[in-house]
Amino acid sequence: MVTEIIKKRKSIRRYNPNGTVTDAQLKQILEAAMHAPSACNTRPWEFTVIRNRKVLDKFVEFHSFAKMLKTAAAAIVVCALPDTQSGKSGEGMWQHDCGAATQNILLAATELGLGTCWCGLHPVTEYMEQTRRILNLSPDKVPFCIIAIGEPAEDFGGRGFYDEAKVTWVD
Amino acid sequence: MVTEIIKKRKSIRRYNPNGTVTDAQLKQILEAAMHAPSACNTRPWEFTVIRNRKVLDKFVEFHSFAKMLKTAAAAIVVCALPDTQSGKSGEGMWQHDCGAATQNILLAATELGLGTCWCGLHPVTEYMEQTRRILNLSPDKVPFCIIAIGEPAEDFGGRGFYDEAKVTWVD
Repeated sequence: MVTEIIKKRKSIRRYNPNGTVTDAQLKQILEAAMHAPSACNTRPWEFTVIRNRKVLDKFVEFHSFAKMLKTAAAAIVVCALPDTQSGKSGEGMWQHDCGAATQNILLAATELGLGTCWCGLHPVTEYMEQTRRILNLSPDKVPFCIIAIGEPAEDFGGRGFYDEAKVTWVD
Repeated sequence: MVTEIIKKRKSIRRYNPNGTVTDAQLKQILEAAMHAPSACNTRPWEFTVIRNRKVLDKFVEFHSFAKMLKTAAAAIVVCALPDTQSGKSGEGMWQHDCGAATQNILLAATELGLGTCWCGLHPVTEYMEQTRRILNLSPDKVPFCIIAIGEPAEDFGGRGFYDEAKVTWVD
């Protein structure tokens, strides 16, 4: 059930430092990401999969809320490609699209028993600049977020809830 | 399987005009939305559920890509509440959060056999202003998207695919 996985997912901040994430798992996760909807089917995204410990540690150094990367086995940086939407009716909607792709990554990983934590990069200038520098990104790519992935060392169990106060009904 | 639903989902643009979406279905869908992750758990979102035909038709009039609302039984407008993140470390990340909540809406609806179509509002000024006017939204709310929901009159079957050219591996 999708809704079970949606409710089970939570941000995992403690990982087994000896855990691994395989190529096959990552490809399954990225396939889910690339099935997200996108404005006018522009697919304005790219993914950098990082398992190199030294590179993961560089993100820990500058990102205040990505300390869990210290023990995560992998991370995926989602970059947006806003230029793919220039002049089209979907212009500027790449944040919708990258958000959808990222949520698919979290859910596909949760189904595989892997923990995840979504750490935002955009629109924090410092986070984006550091990411550009570390990954040597071309200027057309906008670092959107980095997602920690690994073998969880804490239990799943989301803390979301239905809140009627957040809903207006127009019948 | 989450990944099956992720792959099955596609933007549904033809609905059975006599179809219905129940309160129970909508609450299950909104519960999924509110289980999305959010920056520093700010939950910077609100949802307006529209089943009133006259109100749905108003969106058809101004939005170039929301014509399917003419036959959809319902729609959900996702609004962001950026002020909830002001001065916090999650500041400005409400687009991540609303994107995640919207993707959960699509997946939960797909699981229920309902069709959906994600129509962006932000950052198109005209779409946001028209939505504010129709729903009489207070200035602190940012219309993010409107999602058509209804009984599909076309087959599911996503057109996403894994594209290795979109992936960089840093091992």
